[in-house]
Amino acid sequence: MITVYSDDHVGHDGKAELHDGKLVPSFEMPRRAALVLARVQETGLGPVMPPKLFGLDPVRRVHAADYVAFLEGAWDAWVAEHGPWDALPFTWIAPGMRRVVPDHIDGKLGYYSFDAGTPITAGTWRAVRAAADVALTGAELIVRGERGAFALCRPPGHHAHRACYGGYCFFNNAAIAAQALRDAGAERVAVLDIDCHHGNGTQDIFYDRGDVLFVSLHADPVQEYPYFLGFADETGTGAGEGANANYPLPFGTDFAAWSEALAHALARIAAFGAEALVVSLGVDTFKGDPISRFRLDSPDYTAIGERLAAAGLPTLFVMEGGYAVEAIGLNAVNVLQGFRAAA
Amino acid sequence: MITVYSDDHVGHDGKAELHDGKLVPSFEMPRRAALVLARVQETGLGPVMPPKLFGLDPVRRVHAADYVAFLEGAWDAWVAEHGPWDALPFTWIAPGMRRVVPDHIDGKLGYYSFDAGTPITAGTWRAVRAAADVALTGAELIVRGERGAFALCRPPGHHAHRACYGGYCFFNNAAIAAQALRDAGAERVAVLDIDCHHGNGTQDIFYDRGDVLFVSLHADPVQEYPYFLGFADETGTGAGEGANANYPLPFGTDFAAWSEALAHALARIAAFGAEALVVSLGVDTFKGDPISRFRLDSPDYTAIGERLAAAGLPTLFVMEGGYAVEAIGLNAVNVLQGFRAAA
Ligand SMILES: [Zn+2]
Ligand SMILES: [Zn+2]
Repeated sequence: MITVYSDDHVGHDGKAELHDGKLVPSFEMPRRAALVLARVQETGLGPVMPPKLFGLDPVRRVHAADYVAFLEGAWDAWVAEHGPWDALPFTWIAPGMRRVVPDHIDGKLGYYSFDAGTPITAGTWRAVRAAADVALTGAELIVRGERGAFALCRPPGHHAHRACYGGYCFFNNAAIAAQALRDAGAERVAVLDIDCHHGNGTQDIFYDRGDVLFVSLHADPVQEYPYFLGFADETGTGAGEGANANYPLPFGTDFAAWSEALAHALARIAAFGAEALVVSLGVDTFKGDPISRFRLDSPDYTAIGERLAAAGLPTLFVMEGGYAVEAIGLNAVNVLQGFRAAA
Repeated sequence: MITVYSDDHVGHDGKAELHDGKLVPSFEMPRRAALVLARVQETGLGPVMPPKLFGLDPVRRVHAADYVAFLEGAWDAWVAEHGPWDALPFTWIAPGMRRVVPDHIDGKLGYYSFDAGTPITAGTWRAVRAAADVALTGAELIVRGERGAFALCRPPGHHAHRACYGGYCFFNNAAIAAQALRDAGAERVAVLDIDCHHGNGTQDIFYDRGDVLFVSLHADPVQEYPYFLGFADETGTGAGEGANANYPLPFGTDFAAWSEALAHALARIAAFGAEALVVSLGVDTFKGDPISRFRLDSPDYTAIGERLAAAGLPTLFVMEGGYAVEAIGLNAVNVLQGFRAAA
């Protein structure tokens, strides 16, 4: 299986995030991708290639143009106001307030975001663009006939909405890839999100569309981030009615319970008649994850890969979360090895 | 002029707020009220009395019951989850997300707030209740015939919406007082907000009502917090159409320009036919304020007091912002001295 990877992520290196009322070192760090890459190489999963450059047009297929322009200019605007320290939003739009884009960068950050845990740094824009190119290169491998491919994206993407960032995500790499698959001719594409957190951004982007099925297994939002999306009664709207399926699961979920939800999810994907599958591959379902509360163990990830292979679809894996850094390579690549062995 | 004051604010002592991407010591601190009180006593403004206890019913006249209950229990819920460290929200509801109250305290904080600069501490609930009692006691003095009274509230209140907190504010003391004046028989009440920041909470609470006029002079929200409310085209809705007036002013506004806007504001209040006036008295319009960018000087505050006296209305002053701490007593009490001398 080919892995697509770019070093351009390393400059996205946030110092801190607001967590439990304190600024703590960022859980989402460059070492995460480095360790996944190392494991890919160690295990001989397959060749590693750099991304091709696609520009911003395929990004704007799923993200608002003003949002893309904001991200491009945010760091410079922040530095001009505050100096070269990571940017974090501190205020946002409450109910009863207006959706007006402020002139001031502090207001803009609040307008285009939904948490104070996602720093914008000197290297963020370069990293975000590269991650989109990595996802798009992966999609192209699938279009060209690969059975599976791995887009080793960093930063992750599944929390990013059409026009706002949060949850360590800026561009929604999985959504960009799914759209690219559609644009390359696949009539129906499914996105399966197995990160421990709801893929609120991906859901947001495709919620009114019937051509992209979004299915997510995640911690119940009444208990877990992102709190305000990911409930079971969110089934899509308009042309998208019936093309969104959420499987919220309680804190403490182990592989047995998680597996059962996966079976339902895969049945939905089969019934949908997808021609290609994009997997938002988060491994923060791991029992050792410092910010999540599921209880999957490392061998379970191999089993997940086998189950995904059995779906029989051309499959692009897009890297999402996973914060037990020392185990992230093992767990993520277990999924890919399980898939490769069974496909 | 009688000052109403309670020591119960001192336990609301936040350690830090998210500001310019860093956690910095809270600008809103107990010393602010202590120094205003000291200046009241030094200058012989008049007697200082403690608040009467009014309970929560008059608070619930302007705040949602679930919001009040949330504030009452927030500290205990936070400590149970995270330990005894100040609570700050870190994630919030983006467009496209749902307004569902989460079970988890981290989600609840985001649901009921609009910034990460307003810590909830061990003493917050006690302070917030006392501040409402201070405002209500001040309103009662006006009802009993005082020409002017000073509610030395802390924490401030004007940013607090019907059901969310932010901007150092939890209960909207000025709105609670204005409602109490209405409930005591005043047919029409005006609230004039002269804090450097828009009184978004007060506007929110009375926006659809024609019996309470809200008028605010403040830094233009395209440049300044709270960014998403306070524009000149916000004139009220429904029965409140025409009973809301915003005067946004640019960074750098000096007393000459500010005064001109005050003249317009006072003309609006006169035309409205208010029977009583509540003044949201922020002095962060001061040229030395560390977080604001207007250029008023200390003697200007005396002139403001004189101008307010000339409006000829029974007037309750409710303390709001002001973060040039060493000058806060001088500036706030200058307004009151100016009023008293001219009334
Ligand atoms: Zn996650
Ligand atoms: Zn203020």
